[in-house]
Amino acid sequence: MPRWAGRFIVFEGLDGTGKTTQQGRAARRLRAMGFDVVETREPGGSAVGEAARQIVLNLSDLNPRAETFLFLAARAHHVHAAILPALKKGSVVLCDRFLDSTVAYQHGGHGLPLAAIDSMNKFAANGCLPDLTLLLDLDIEKAARRVQERDERKTRFEEESLAFRRRVREAYLRIAESEPDRVKIVNAALDEDAVEAQIWTHIETAIAAEDRR
Amino acid sequence: MPRWAGRFIVFEGLDGTGKTTQQGRAARRLRAMGFDVVETREPGGSAVGEAARQIVLNLSDLNPRAETFLFLAARAHHVHAAILPALKKGSVVLCDRFLDSTVAYQHGGHGLPLAAIDSMNKFAANGCLPDLTLLLDLDIEKAARRVQERDERKTRFEEESLAFRRRVREAYLRIAESEPDRVKIVNAALDEDAVEAQIWTHIETAIAAEDRR
Repeated sequence: MPRWAGRFIVFEGLDGTGKTTQQGRAARRLRAMGFDVVETREPGGSAVGEAARQIVLNLSDLNPRAETFLFLAARAHHVHAAILPALKKGSVVLCDRFLDSTVAYQHGGHGLPLAAIDSMNKFAANGCLPDLTLLLDLDIEKAARRVQERDERKTRFEEESLAFRRRVREAYLRIAESEPDRVKIVNAALDEDAVEAQIWTHIETAIAAEDRR
Repeated sequence: MPRWAGRFIVFEGLDGTGKTTQQGRAARRLRAMGFDVVETREPGGSAVGEAARQIVLNLSDLNPRAETFLFLAARAHHVHAAILPALKKGSVVLCDRFLDSTVAYQHGGHGLPLAAIDSMNKFAANGCLPDLTLLLDLDIEKAARRVQERDERKTRFEEESLAFRRRVREAYLRIAESEPDRVKIVNAALDEDAVEAQIWTHIETAIAAEDRR
């Protein structure tokens, strides 16, 4: 097995940008290379996350501050109960949404203060930070159309206004600009194979960089 | 009605110190004076709080950081959906546990960093701070015996060790020492009438101070 084990890769982006599909494709490629791969997601990847998700979807008077804390509770438990144990046994962990979602949605979307979100994120992650984050970037109208075409029950997340989504996308792009080593922007407007190829280039580069050390 | 309306009084202390009983007695006295009184509690005083409480009681691998965020989510929702609306219409709000519980249990008990707890508490309270906090202080062994005598299903909170409770009590007393204007220590070892009398003195003093302004 290559030395690049026990690493943490996060997929970020608006709903409809193809995160789930691309995470699955990356997992298959990594498994084919001999890695043990754990696929997970937030907020649903732990018992707290599933409960938080149900509250967020069903409670109509939930305020953004309470919603933020529910996502952070889900994250703190997810890190403790799933991500850290998997990393410690050498698995590669692929996660759909992590810290940057909270910055993009709660700060960018809802306007909550960035400094508070950053410090609470750190408290939740407790030192467990992504090695590589793939930001699937797509025009907000295209992302919204893809969500509609899925024929799923619309979630509260998916009913957010276009203005809200625009602020979320812009916040994501600012994160990528400020942390270019960790966050790689992926053009999610291309077909699935082309998106997969971009993502795989970033993962291979990370593996090669590690193996050179 | 006296001018002292729209105020926020919190009852704090270990389980078994008589918070619930004394909150009820203070509510009756305030109502007899003509105040509209809202009695509530954390974490159970909102839909998020009840869900958080169920998770905390039932999830065996819940880590202190996730637990902290669940209580903060409950608080943020409770402030938004119950406490602030009641204060705005001029009610006196009596609440069983609030910010200081998180400092005492999560920092004092579990050892999480105080600065992080303080800033997250502020984010949750969003400016809604108690006017008066009554800290019911009691020897930890006596408090534990009172809990046992209640013949209720033991909760996870109530199964904490004596060493944990000692740290919680000490943290409470440090808060009272650092904020003597807001936090009044009540000797909860006396009989219920004597405890009520101490509490009522503090409340009357607060009302009189306000009416003199």
